[in-house]
Amino acid sequence: MSNKKSLRSALTEKPGVPTIEIVSAIAVGTIQHFRKIQPSINDLVVGILARNITTLSRAITLVESTNSIHLAKANEVINACLPYAGKSMRIGITGVPGVGKSTFIEAFGKILTSLGKKVAVLAVDPSSTISHGSILGDKTRMEELVKDKNAYIRPSASGETLGGVARKTRETITLCEAAGFDTIIIETVGVGQSETAVHSMVDFFLLLKISGAGDELQGIKRGIMEMADAIVINKADGDNIKKAQFAKMEFNRALHLFPAKNSGWTPTTSTCSSITHEGISTVWETIEQFLILTKENNSFYTKRKEQNQYWMLETINEYLKTSFYNQSEIQNLLESTKKAVQNDEISPFAAAQLLLDKYFHTADSNKKEN
Amino acid sequence: MSNKKSLRSALTEKPGVPTIEIVSAIAVGTIQHFRKIQPSINDLVVGILARNITTLSRAITLVESTNSIHLAKANEVINACLPYAGKSMRIGITGVPGVGKSTFIEAFGKILTSLGKKVAVLAVDPSSTISHGSILGDKTRMEELVKDKNAYIRPSASGETLGGVARKTRETITLCEAAGFDTIIIETVGVGQSETAVHSMVDFFLLLKISGAGDELQGIKRGIMEMADAIVINKADGDNIKKAQFAKMEFNRALHLFPAKNSGWTPTTSTCSSITHEGISTVWETIEQFLILTKENNSFYTKRKEQNQYWMLETINEYLKTSFYNQSEIQNLLESTKKAVQNDEISPFAAAQLLLDKYFHTADSNKKEN
Repeated sequence: MSNKKSLRSALTEKPGVPTIEIVSAIAVGTIQHFRKIQPSINDLVVGILARNITTLSRAITLVESTNSIHLAKANEVINACLPYAGKSMRIGITGVPGVGKSTFIEAFGKILTSLGKKVAVLAVDPSSTISHGSILGDKTRMEELVKDKNAYIRPSASGETLGGVARKTRETITLCEAAGFDTIIIETVGVGQSETAVHSMVDFFLLLKISGAGDELQGIKRGIMEMADAIVINKADGDNIKKAQFAKMEFNRALHLFPAKNSGWTPTTSTCSSITHEGISTVWETIEQFLILTKENNSFYTKRKEQNQYWMLETINEYLKTSFYNQSEIQNLLESTKKAVQNDEISPFAAAQLLLDKYFHTADSNKKEN
Repeated sequence: MSNKKSLRSALTEKPGVPTIEIVSAIAVGTIQHFRKIQPSINDLVVGILARNITTLSRAITLVESTNSIHLAKANEVINACLPYAGKSMRIGITGVPGVGKSTFIEAFGKILTSLGKKVAVLAVDPSSTISHGSILGDKTRMEELVKDKNAYIRPSASGETLGGVARKTRETITLCEAAGFDTIIIETVGVGQSETAVHSMVDFFLLLKISGAGDELQGIKRGIMEMADAIVINKADGDNIKKAQFAKMEFNRALHLFPAKNSGWTPTTSTCSSITHEGISTVWETIEQFLILTKENNSFYTKRKEQNQYWMLETINEYLKTSFYNQSEIQNLLESTKKAVQNDEISPFAAAQLLLDKYFHTADSNKKEN
């Protein structure tokens, strides 16, 4: 092309470059659009405190972002919201799939809003990245609550690690509280360590069960029953009522096997039906009793302080581990070292020392090169 | 003094410094003594494999040392011993103080040696640093076993952290196995996380209990009952027999509440008396049945591989944390940051980020200065 052009007469006049307008209409539009979707930290905080749900959702989206600029902004918003947060009741609800968590939360949430409460429903579900939101993903499963202007439902954040998902949910609690929600429900499903994570961010932990045939207690995951402040047998309706009451008795006996809780609270058992709504308000009455007791003996506040500290230490620990295992030298060595340890070719402690020496030495020489 | 001396005549003759002998008899003695107490790595390995108890004890002392040269030497001895280790049955025994652990181990150990077994008894007791050896510290509590040439009793290593004490015990197992001990008993007392540590280094975990008045199951520490492969009610003698049998029934019912174990083993309950020796040999028969089952279904070997890997990862994690929390910058900041987090002045995650930035930046600039 250029060759062909160069054959033309040198006198040919070029059309020239069009003059750039000082104020580009497109740029203005882009900036305006950018401003619109990127409210300032102040805008976000003011909006949240004004209980603007759109602003709240935007701030949560920042918290859930993987972009470091967004996260820095989210941190500032959260820290500004902290003085206005913390005044809610945080309730964790767990139960295996099929136990009826969504219908229970729907019925339970409606009772709470009818009592004048403002209810936020969040979820911790590390599997949602793979399953594209197995819990709370489909808001239609809480039809009534979705339409309720005093309820806010947010599906689980996604993330590769439970730690990441948990952090996002924990920070979302702060934002929801600052936005005036006084009851936060956090749903989780029995996958891996997610119950422990949820237990570490709520005041009250509720285990939802259904009655089955035979031994009611088999198959409960390690430690879950010990965490529960209440065990509620759902689907106690129709032919199921007797079975549910039997299950309640079994669980009640089992709960007595565990050591007393630091809170001074004795875990309760009850039955309910998310269809007939029988027993649902009892759950809230139980939680109210729990609140009176634990605020009186101060364990409510002590536990929250401990939880805050737990999340700080846990975050540090997670980060230190990530930094170690993500180092390329360690990634190259880890599998062969693990095998050598499994086959008793090297002691686990000598192997650890070997990897640690590598990690700190490499970090060292990388820095010297810079 | 020096002033008075300077008043004396300048002609006063000083006695002079005595000539140093080229070969000092004292130095020779010290070096010979030093050599005597510091056998070479080869000497130690050969001695251990020759089942020399004095050499075994010396090697264990190296493992327990805080001196890094000793530890490097210990690592080499352990790695050389590894091919000859691993062939024992490792039994963990736990129970609160007063349950009769020492007398049980004495009676149990005597049965094992009478069956031709070589028994090593170790302990994990992180409290021993403070209490100067609360368990196994006093060998006279196992009078008979101490005199038995087929038994070796070693009190708990001391150390500031459970991780340190556990590492030392885990490595002592390897040395004892290489020295021909085919049954390793590890005693621990219910303090903090020590049961978890012991559970992670044994094949079979035994919970020792006594019958009490009232509810037998109250007061069992979280998770301990879930770890047990057998619950043995001790002191089932005299007036206690009926109560012990009732306790056995209660525990048996409680054990069924827990999910099935990966090993395929159903935990057992039994009663025994360390005085009448009734039921003690039953414990060994149970362990033999456990061995047959778990070796047949391979879970015995799988568990050992998992345990090795656990100790490697655990050691790495502990070290990373120690490195973090021992940094002086972090030590200066930690308490105030914890307080700010507890008082909701900063989010736990923002606080963690702040400390992590400090840690990596300081490590960075320290290295640049060097």
